Amino acid sequence: MQIAVLLYPGFTALDAIGPFDTLSPLPGTEVVLVAERPGPVRNESGNLALVADASLAEVTSPDVVVVPGSADPSGQLGPGPVTEWLQQVDRTTTWTTSVCSGSLILASAGLLTGRRATSHWLMLEQLAAYGVEATGERVVFDGKYVTAAGVSSGIDMALALVGRIAGDRAAQSVQLLIEYDPQPPYDAGSPEKAPADLVAEWRNADLAQLVKPQPID
Amino acid sequence: MQIAVLLYPGFTALDAIGPFDTLSPLPGTEVVLVAERPGPVRNESGNLALVADASLAEVTSPDVVVVPGSADPSGQLGPGPVTEWLQQVDRTTTWTTSVCSGSLILASAGLLTGRRATSHWLMLEQLAAYGVEATGERVVFDGKYVTAAGVSSGIDMALALVGRIAGDRAAQSVQLLIEYDPQPPYDAGSPEKAPADLVAEWRNADLAQLVKPQPID
Repeated sequence: MQIAVLLYPGFTALDAIGPFDTLSPLPGTEVVLVAERPGPVRNESGNLALVADASLAEVTSPDVVVVPGSADPSGQLGPGPVTEWLQQVDRTTTWTTSVCSGSLILASAGLLTGRRATSHWLMLEQLAAYGVEATGERVVFDGKYVTAAGVSSGIDMALALVGRIAGDRAAQSVQLLIEYDPQPPYDAGSPEKAPADLVAEWRNADLAQLVKPQPID
Repeated sequence: MQIAVLLYPGFTALDAIGPFDTLSPLPGTEVVLVAERPGPVRNESGNLALVADASLAEVTSPDVVVVPGSADPSGQLGPGPVTEWLQQVDRTTTWTTSVCSGSLILASAGLLTGRRATSHWLMLEQLAAYGVEATGERVVFDGKYVTAAGVSSGIDMALALVGRIAGDRAAQSVQLLIEYDPQPPYDAGSPEKAPADLVAEWRNADLAQLVKPQPID
């Protein structure tokens, strides 16, 4: 089984790596980082580069696709190599998945039209604008399309996916291996739970500004 | 403030990226990936490379150091460039931290002797052998030394650290941004909670074998 984790300039690292390290222990699985071209791909803040080991052209029939999000995914919305690749590989995937605003990229490619899906809590309106039934749930399965909410939710999504692919015991095994027994020191991880003024502050923030690129390359 | 996240051949990606993306939103902070030499550094399975943007020699006085773990950290235990660098920068850090078996690397450098610390649940005996008061807690503060349990616990550790560095509100803000409202689909994330036979299976497993390197470079 081949699992392709997509990289593109401006991606959020944890969106990609949460699922990456949760799916990697699956037996008989190759997990590969893919991008338009092989080589380093910088994240949204420019302070990290992950290496794509394969080009989109080299990965033509992955079983699972994971699309991470970005504070500013606009560069991947609309026609372009990523959209074309997603439309092509989606024809034969078993699971097409996203984390955070990665669902906007899937939606923009027309893959979520009329489906239930989730995204980062700040991106749900934008998701709905693509004709998607946007929900604030943390992980949403709709057929073979699996979407996760913001950033850290990719771990929950990937664990659920391991369960569907290899059974509950395999998923529990991975959970134990990555010691995923979360104990956040605060209870502010969703707009329903965080202080209302913080939520309002983020609603008014310019996310793309927040993660001002600091180019190093 | 400079935060240095250490990379070395065989590191676990999520150990590094959980704290990376939790600490990155801190205002006025530079987070840099460092390794013995700049350039791509492969993870334990060989299926991912992160780029070190700076060499150890270039990062001489970080305020915070994060040491990720590995399924097989043995290459970093004992004398060597990483140990020397840790001993040197620890003299001036505000916080010296680790995730997973990263605490073995700190302990091997003599930085945790006589202190309370944690590690991956499978590594606690090895940690104790360094004269450390090893505990199975998820995040342990002892003075400026902060250690986290296995892999995913680096997110909890980094959130707690944001709270100490910038206050509760800043930490809640980051938690909301990364939507860290964990909802694992299983409750098997610790040896106390997982099925006993699974725990026994892992205790008998050869972790280094599990993540057989598949060199790509």
